[in-house]
Amino acid sequence: MKLKQLGEFGLIEKIRGTTPRGLGVLLGIGDDAAWLKTQKGSVLVTSDLLIEKVHFDLRWISFYDLGYKTLSANISDLAAMGGVPTYLVLSLGIPVDFNAEDVEEFYHGIRKLASECEVALVGGDTVASDRFFIGAFLMGHAPYSPITRSGAKEGDDLYVTGTLGDSALGLDLLKRTRGRTKSGELAYLMSRHSTPTARLKAGTLLAKEKLAKAMIDISDGLLQDLGHLCRASGVGAEVWQDLLPLSQAYQKYSGRKASLYALTGGENYELLFSLRMRDRGRLKKIERRLGVPITRIGKFVPAPQGIQVVDHQGKILPLPHGGFDHFRKSS
Amino acid sequence: MKLKQLGEFGLIEKIRGTTPRGLGVLLGIGDDAAWLKTQKGSVLVTSDLLIEKVHFDLRWISFYDLGYKTLSANISDLAAMGGVPTYLVLSLGIPVDFNAEDVEEFYHGIRKLASECEVALVGGDTVASDRFFIGAFLMGHAPYSPITRSGAKEGDDLYVTGTLGDSALGLDLLKRTRGRTKSGELAYLMSRHSTPTARLKAGTLLAKEKLAKAMIDISDGLLQDLGHLCRASGVGAEVWQDLLPLSQAYQKYSGRKASLYALTGGENYELLFSLRMRDRGRLKKIERRLGVPITRIGKFVPAPQGIQVVDHQGKILPLPHGGFDHFRKSS
Repeated sequence: MKLKQLGEFGLIEKIRGTTPRGLGVLLGIGDDAAWLKTQKGSVLVTSDLLIEKVHFDLRWISFYDLGYKTLSANISDLAAMGGVPTYLVLSLGIPVDFNAEDVEEFYHGIRKLASECEVALVGGDTVASDRFFIGAFLMGHAPYSPITRSGAKEGDDLYVTGTLGDSALGLDLLKRTRGRTKSGELAYLMSRHSTPTARLKAGTLLAKEKLAKAMIDISDGLLQDLGHLCRASGVGAEVWQDLLPLSQAYQKYSGRKASLYALTGGENYELLFSLRMRDRGRLKKIERRLGVPITRIGKFVPAPQGIQVVDHQGKILPLPHGGFDHFRKSS
Repeated sequence: MKLKQLGEFGLIEKIRGTTPRGLGVLLGIGDDAAWLKTQKGSVLVTSDLLIEKVHFDLRWISFYDLGYKTLSANISDLAAMGGVPTYLVLSLGIPVDFNAEDVEEFYHGIRKLASECEVALVGGDTVASDRFFIGAFLMGHAPYSPITRSGAKEGDDLYVTGTLGDSALGLDLLKRTRGRTKSGELAYLMSRHSTPTARLKAGTLLAKEKLAKAMIDISDGLLQDLGHLCRASGVGAEVWQDLLPLSQAYQKYSGRKASLYALTGGENYELLFSLRMRDRGRLKKIERRLGVPITRIGKFVPAPQGIQVVDHQGKILPLPHGGFDHFRKSS
């Protein structure tokens, strides 16, 4: 059924009918505002705006995956603070000739991850628009002191969770195969783009153990997000290119793009963090509990040095262009 | 300066630099998430999505007014729960050829009302888009038990704050004068459209005194919003057309549109609420403290009767079409 037949309130009723109430939700979808329990006297809030053709292309991603990914990207922002997600508010701009079934598929993707992470969908808004777009607001709570971007010091180690570049390469593959998913290693790379996993457990554990002193998730690309962290902390950083963690599949298929995507590929959703050198032993000990490999990929240096990528001989490599600024055209 | 010259991060820096930190903000704009104090172990959350040419037209409204109005509309949703606004997250889709100054004007309008109501701007997102659009997410706290839409009973009185139809008529006038503001009564009507006032004080007081049993703000039009309230409460309603409160300016200039706009005009941001008959005396007593006229305009009846508009002889009048459904074309 087309949305123009179902109508806005019909759609809201459908969404409402299939949305479980959720933990802590005193009043959910359907009133002027949602009313929600909070913990420890504070909340964490993050938001994301995703537009068709800018942030995603429905030729390469299904509605279900897009829903899943939307929530995952926002959970990743909370994970980067050491927080835990709780409530989601979702606003959608939807072309009137979309099928209601597609929008429901989108919500299924949202709901899949939401139920895994105990996130409740508590409200939102839907309006007609030329392009599909998504405004997501995710709330969470902070079981431990949140980790900001500003706690890195000169001399700290630079660590990253998981592997780099998979998502960017996965998108390449999706484009090349026109969205048809493959099996095996290719499927792995594609899924890293379509249904990425936020490092929620790692984020909370690093906060609990007070190991990460500054942390950010990689959404715009390693170098760009490292830049945000360095500016907030007032330091520079040296990145050791040869130590960047790359998945087997990535090594096999990335070819000439290997270092480019690892350094600048966005939507990676790994966590980048600083660690005091004295905490290396403690980090090692809890690495298994983190549930994800963590790799030392550089160190923080004085601010005037900026960000440098060096090879194993210490030679400074040219910085690749990349990362995402929405108002600038890439050259 | 065009936005494509300033860039996304340049814009964020500008906004951040001119945003005061705000009460209760433990961590504001510029990290992966904002960290915010909450009161009484709960929060109220509302959101709104506004798109150029659908919800507003930059020919009739200035960037400053649009900012003011965006926040006002969201405050109105919290007021309708008896809540108090605290934190705003704002996501903007902005055409790349917009002037940065216009976007700053928009933020000035936001900030004007935000400082009046002690709302802190705590985060958001900006992306390039074809049309200007605004995703607002407003949090608040509930000093008293929130008033939902579902508490109205058969036999209750139906009340409304302020006057009806001014905003719709104001928009008509703005279109006719091509956005040039007038003085006197015309200016009043236009301002009711461009910089509406949310009934914040009335909302909280009605909650504090436990007078309103069900409440909603009029954003889609009296009849449509009354419909939402009736459905949620499982009742019907009778509206007395001759008692609808109309401003002097409205009576003078509305002409043939008088009852149409009063019944269906959107963006009115008055509060519509149910009152037990036994509370009439108590309501009368605190009317002056409410800071706004309140008028009894009907009563709640059994659900099967639906919503009826009647004249002073009790004659049922034909229901006008109107109110807003975003996925349906108006006939």
